[in-house]
Amino acid sequence: MIISYREQRATVSIEFTVPDEVADLAARTATLVREVVIPVEIRVRGALHDGDESVRAKLQQAAREAGVFCQQMPPEYGGLGLDMRGQAVVFEQAGYSLLGPLATNCAAPDEGNMHLLEVVGSPVLRERYLKPLAAGDTRSCFAMTEPAPGAGADPRALATTATRVAGGWRIDGRKWFISGARGAAFAIVMARTSGVAGDAGGATMFLVDAGTPGFKLVRDIDTMDQGLFAGHSEIVFDECVVPDDQVLGEVDRGFEYAQVRLAPARLTHCMRWLGIARRAQDIALGYATTRKAFGGYLADLGMVQQQIADSEIDIEASRAMIYRTAWQLDQSATDSAAGHLSSMTKVFVAEAAYRVVDRSVQICGALGISEDVLLSRYFREVRAFRVYDGPSDTHRWAIAKRVSRRHRTVEA
Amino acid sequence: MIISYREQRATVSIEFTVPDEVADLAARTATLVREVVIPVEIRVRGALHDGDESVRAKLQQAAREAGVFCQQMPPEYGGLGLDMRGQAVVFEQAGYSLLGPLATNCAAPDEGNMHLLEVVGSPVLRERYLKPLAAGDTRSCFAMTEPAPGAGADPRALATTATRVAGGWRIDGRKWFISGARGAAFAIVMARTSGVAGDAGGATMFLVDAGTPGFKLVRDIDTMDQGLFAGHSEIVFDECVVPDDQVLGEVDRGFEYAQVRLAPARLTHCMRWLGIARRAQDIALGYATTRKAFGGYLADLGMVQQQIADSEIDIEASRAMIYRTAWQLDQSATDSAAGHLSSMTKVFVAEAAYRVVDRSVQICGALGISEDVLLSRYFREVRAFRVYDGPSDTHRWAIAKRVSRRHRTVEA
Amino acid sequence: MIISYREQRATVSIEFTVPDEVADLAARTATLVREVVIPVEIRVRGALHDGDESVRAKLQQAAREAGVFCQQMPPEYGGLGLDMRGQAVVFEQAGYSLLGPLATNCAAPDEGNMHLLEVVGSPVLRERYLKPLAAGDTRSCFAMTEPAPGAGADPRALATTATRVAGGWRIDGRKWFISGARGAAFAIVMARTSGVAGDAGGATMFLVDAGTPGFKLVRDIDTMDQGLFAGHSEIVFDECVVPDDQVLGEVDRGFEYAQVRLAPARLTHCMRWLGIARRAQDIALGYATTRKAFGGYLADLGMVQQQIADSEIDIEASRAMIYRTAWQLDQSATDSAAGHLSSMTKVFVAEAAYRVVDRSVQICGALGISEDVLLSRYFREVRAFRVYDGPSDTHRWAIAKRVSRRHRTVEA
Amino acid sequence: MIISYREQRATVSIEFTVPDEVADLAARTATLVREVVIPVEIRVRGALHDGDESVRAKLQQAAREAGVFCQQMPPEYGGLGLDMRGQAVVFEQAGYSLLGPLATNCAAPDEGNMHLLEVVGSPVLRERYLKPLAAGDTRSCFAMTEPAPGAGADPRALATTATRVAGGWRIDGRKWFISGARGAAFAIVMARTSGVAGDAGGATMFLVDAGTPGFKLVRDIDTMDQGLFAGHSEIVFDECVVPDDQVLGEVDRGFEYAQVRLAPARLTHCMRWLGIARRAQDIALGYATTRKAFGGYLADLGMVQQQIADSEIDIEASRAMIYRTAWQLDQSATDSAAGHLSSMTKVFVAEAAYRVVDRSVQICGALGISEDVLLSRYFREVRAFRVYDGPSDTHRWAIAKRVSRRHRTVEA
Repeated sequence: MIISYREQRATVSIEFTVPDEVADLAARTATLVREVVIPVEIRVRGALHDGDESVRAKLQQAAREAGVFCQQMPPEYGGLGLDMRGQAVVFEQAGYSLLGPLATNCAAPDEGNMHLLEVVGSPVLRERYLKPLAAGDTRSCFAMTEPAPGAGADPRALATTATRVAGGWRIDGRKWFISGARGAAFAIVMARTSGVAGDAGGATMFLVDAGTPGFKLVRDIDTMDQGLFAGHSEIVFDECVVPDDQVLGEVDRGFEYAQVRLAPARLTHCMRWLGIARRAQDIALGYATTRKAFGGYLADLGMVQQQIADSEIDIEASRAMIYRTAWQLDQSATDSAAGHLSSMTKVFVAEAAYRVVDRSVQICGALGISEDVLLSRYFREVRAFRVYDGPSDTHRWAIAKRVSRRHRTVEA
Repeated sequence: MIISYREQRATVSIEFTVPDEVADLAARTATLVREVVIPVEIRVRGALHDGDESVRAKLQQAAREAGVFCQQMPPEYGGLGLDMRGQAVVFEQAGYSLLGPLATNCAAPDEGNMHLLEVVGSPVLRERYLKPLAAGDTRSCFAMTEPAPGAGADPRALATTATRVAGGWRIDGRKWFISGARGAAFAIVMARTSGVAGDAGGATMFLVDAGTPGFKLVRDIDTMDQGLFAGHSEIVFDECVVPDDQVLGEVDRGFEYAQVRLAPARLTHCMRWLGIARRAQDIALGYATTRKAFGGYLADLGMVQQQIADSEIDIEASRAMIYRTAWQLDQSATDSAAGHLSSMTKVFVAEAAYRVVDRSVQICGALGISEDVLLSRYFREVRAFRVYDGPSDTHRWAIAKRVSRRHRTVEA
Repeated sequence: MIISYREQRATVSIEFTVPDEVADLAARTATLVREVVIPVEIRVRGALHDGDESVRAKLQQAAREAGVFCQQMPPEYGGLGLDMRGQAVVFEQAGYSLLGPLATNCAAPDEGNMHLLEVVGSPVLRERYLKPLAAGDTRSCFAMTEPAPGAGADPRALATTATRVAGGWRIDGRKWFISGARGAAFAIVMARTSGVAGDAGGATMFLVDAGTPGFKLVRDIDTMDQGLFAGHSEIVFDECVVPDDQVLGEVDRGFEYAQVRLAPARLTHCMRWLGIARRAQDIALGYATTRKAFGGYLADLGMVQQQIADSEIDIEASRAMIYRTAWQLDQSATDSAAGHLSSMTKVFVAEAAYRVVDRSVQICGALGISEDVLLSRYFREVRAFRVYDGPSDTHRWAIAKRVSRRHRTVEA
Repeated sequence: MIISYREQRATVSIEFTVPDEVADLAARTATLVREVVIPVEIRVRGALHDGDESVRAKLQQAAREAGVFCQQMPPEYGGLGLDMRGQAVVFEQAGYSLLGPLATNCAAPDEGNMHLLEVVGSPVLRERYLKPLAAGDTRSCFAMTEPAPGAGADPRALATTATRVAGGWRIDGRKWFISGARGAAFAIVMARTSGVAGDAGGATMFLVDAGTPGFKLVRDIDTMDQGLFAGHSEIVFDECVVPDDQVLGEVDRGFEYAQVRLAPARLTHCMRWLGIARRAQDIALGYATTRKAFGGYLADLGMVQQQIADSEIDIEASRAMIYRTAWQLDQSATDSAAGHLSSMTKVFVAEAAYRVVDRSVQICGALGISEDVLLSRYFREVRAFRVYDGPSDTHRWAIAKRVSRRHRTVEA
């Protein structure tokens, strides 16, 4: 019985080939980032929390002209229909600058919201909300996290309520760390339509337009990271009434939809942060290969070499995991294998990217903690990534529970 | 310009599919390991350094009968012609027991030696040496490492010499940590045919039969690891003369051939140790899901969960890197990208497998440091793997140099 | 208000001065270890689990002659009355060889048992058990740990029972990982005299002589570590009756006495393992300062320097913590501050010593995993130390609970 | 020969007792920090880089009134004459807030400059510069670090020159990351008076008054840390002439004096950052003991407990090392043992404090990366501490070289 000769390798299907079309997109994205985006990034020092729309408009126009705009959306929304693997290749290039994803319209939270709307939204809602969002005409936010004792790492603690009123729902509650809320055209709001805080079900998603009475932005929250457009805000829903047709999907299926959004959104975060990790490594290499100390280049000192090598390994391991998980999500985004892999990849890449940037800061010394280079900015961003989209600890807890359950099942 | 619709995913070539034929081999290998190999492993407590040939014969016969013997060799040598990706899938299953690779004839150092002979050996040498080796009729060793100040982490320090004599070469020198030397039918010996110790070139490989005058086994070296068949020995070449036709490949190309052997051999090591990492995790899970302490199962304690999750992530990241590098080696085993990836994967998997086994020991507590389970054996094996086939530090040094060189080239 | 001039430093009482008498003892201990103990250690390759009494006798005689025998015991038991701080200085010197503590009669478990007997034992029991033990005429063991689901990391799970019989108690149960049991003259046995497994109280300690009917050694357990004299055994009490006067201390106070033993015993372990950490670092330095690779000495390569520096820092930090905790124990061995510090020091030193030995192995490469030097032996010993005397995880759990409780109290 | 009975413990001199007077100072410092300093810290969000003198004046007046002002200086300069051990106790309390050291006038760089002036300065210079500095009437800066390729981690690269002119010296060069330069009354400037960049000697220290022609502040450097008063600036000396009597100490002994300043200054940094580490742990405990998730308090989850325990151990180990090194510096601040210990303690505490703050951020989740609590500020400060006062890598390099040299000497 002969499985495969060395001449018949095609029978083994594990592949890492990037098709020419995707490679071309990646190259064009990289060019855009290098020539257009990075100069802007340097000028604004990587900080976007003020939400300057003129910056966004300029960058997105350049991306449109370069043919790399909103590549993840299907053509009917102006995109190129890249699946997760294609996104993995292209988003890494966009992520090489903090502003790259904004330029190519694949930044959080809009990118995840587009995906959610595409999968769950009715044709009417897609037309109303997804189309302008994909076009870059609007921005959006995703309002799930609440102050203690509400929904945080534990989503079941959801405390915001949506109560039945004539022709619609009245939403009451408080949300915070809502990214991109300032200036967003609408919010996707998670509220409890049945049960009580702590229950595993009973959540519903609502589309709430900016300007709806009772939907108030309370304050902007100062945070360690400042690279997300318009930053993070605290918002309040105070007798905010939305009509029935602004329910996203079906009533009481909100937690389920959250998973639809979160598993791929976690991975696209990883893709983008892999770009920043590479950028940080490149900055460190640029410094280490030109700066002399103790009679030679830094890059020739063993302790620096160790950091460079460790970062390179972290980058390669991250990419391998991202590709693997992207493939799994492309098979089926909703099965448990994909969620499990996406959790593991999120923990790994968040911590690996953090280590890479941390080492790059260390290699550059005083320069690394200054803002003369952007490393200190990147450092703050990747530190935050270990917390948002599920803190590492919460993911580990979920991962361990699944592993133990699987083991018990196999053994039983 | 539309690259790929979600309906047209086939254009994106990143794939992790295991073809049915390989999956079938993997399943049969797993069955063999579970039903035949592990009982023997437990009986001998994972120790093979005594080189008991009756154990080898029995296990290999079982593998032949199961149709999973020497799967990596081409059919003309009795194998199934699996490429590196196929090996990645199957060797992980074999590696689930310390004795699995011995059973399926893919254990070090024979597996790497077969590969070297296949690629470099003349038809005559392949017939004489490779055929019986692939059949399991003989064993072999690879004699490169020398005591200080000879070839170790730095192969250029090669001090063993081969001097021209009539009709052949006279080899003089000392080698140690030569795995599997006791009982080997022949050694592949690296000796210097030109230049002096420290030179980057000038090495040649020789095939030296056991029993050749002047080829002496001096002693067996006690080592932390004991899972390699016949252990590690110190050998001496003292005016050992071999005829010209026992030169492997061409004179003075030994360092180059060493790379032919090392890049894939490093990766097959990783495949096998990934199997042990999974085994260790399974043992720990078996304990944690049944042992109670402090009022619940260990598997429900947060600190144990953290270790289980970290190990699961290490296992998945290792597998992703192995697949990625296997694919690259299948494209071209000798280009620098493959060598670079293989170095990085070796460092990552050696340290990840080590962490997994270390955590499994810790979870099992006193039982973990006993030999009532085999974790303490595995622990010793994976500790050694951080040293052999290039210590992590040496690989990191080489990785950093390549990365810096690439950076300088790109920038120039 | 002037506290202290620079000329008046004596008012500040933090001191690290080692008095001349203790320094002299330390020097003599170091000489004994270097000249007498290490040659024996090399001969037996650091393995003592076979319990060769002729080795023990020879080493202890040498220590007696050097005036450094059983220095921790009061003079009435032939010792020198060193308090914990004095022990910290001297035990580190003894610990520089795996056999040093055996020679100077401060090895586990005898050293901890002596301390327990001294504090808790009646004059009669001290005369009968402590005196010959301190003199090196006998050995002892401490029988607490049980197989699942009995007492392990969680001592309250104690399942061995002692039932009232006329004139004494009948002990029934199984213990394992009982260090030094083979050849011990007596065991200090923890058994439940009231309540049920899981209760926080109800344990009593018994002195059971070897040879008492029903006290059986079932088997020796093979373990990763082999440096403890006579290794670890599994024992059974099967209707083993002991008279009332062999109760150690009072009935039902066993858990309390266990703490009397454990807090200082954990620290003396740390003192001894600090010695091994220093030894491992010295072996690595000996290799790194003489072995050349890549054109220079290993000790001049940055990655090796990093490991040397990290190990030096681990050694210094360990010593500082040991001194600090020794001082605290000398103030009061039983208050909670001492127990808390002793837990933290155990975790820190166990892991630091492990890291030091692990790095030393790595620096020495193939030699490090051989038994040509003793590093691979030390590695196995320090790995086990992360488990026994409370696994790191259990200590961390207890530490965190105390810290949180303290915080809640302060805030309330 | 009896060394010490347990009744005679006083003969062992290792002590950790804090005398009542120092304990009283520590308590009063803690009260000041809690009642006066922290409210200000919260108001300004821990950021002092703007150098608001009204904040400084208010805080320092409160410290004077509390009798805890400039405790490290001798009475003739208005201080309390605390030695390093006394400082260790008191500075930790001051460091519990980022503004505490500013309040008690023990903040960098003034505190180190005072020490340098006290030890090296002539009576005239001490009167002119030290007296107002100790009184809080002026501030100062220490101008050593230069942009590439000048003095950085490698001080011998010093490029700023001082050239002999009539009656004085003309200084030319550029310095950056000069902490506290904006608003400083004077700078202590390191300039080369002989030799060339790269030489081990030839540096001299000069006192340069603000306003001296040719002494220009070029810009403020944005850095990750913002807790140092007046931040870090870039300054230029352009034909800046200073008279002979402003030479600090003797010509050409600048490198030697730098060590006088650096060894203790590194340690006082550690003392202060230990305070912040404790503060971060307290914030995390406050959150973990009151915030519920997954059905209980965070403080009862195993993964959180692990972080709490690890931080507690880091804090205790840091304190033990600080006390140890403080004692050594009090014996002799200039011998090599003190410098060696101070290097090791700097590396350890910088990394330990960083780990503690990092864990605290993680425990607090989204709140931890916001500025609603000050953790994100602390995080940025401690990250920078791994770089300034010698990056960890440079210290490790120096530590390893000393350790290897010592080993070679002992063996020779």
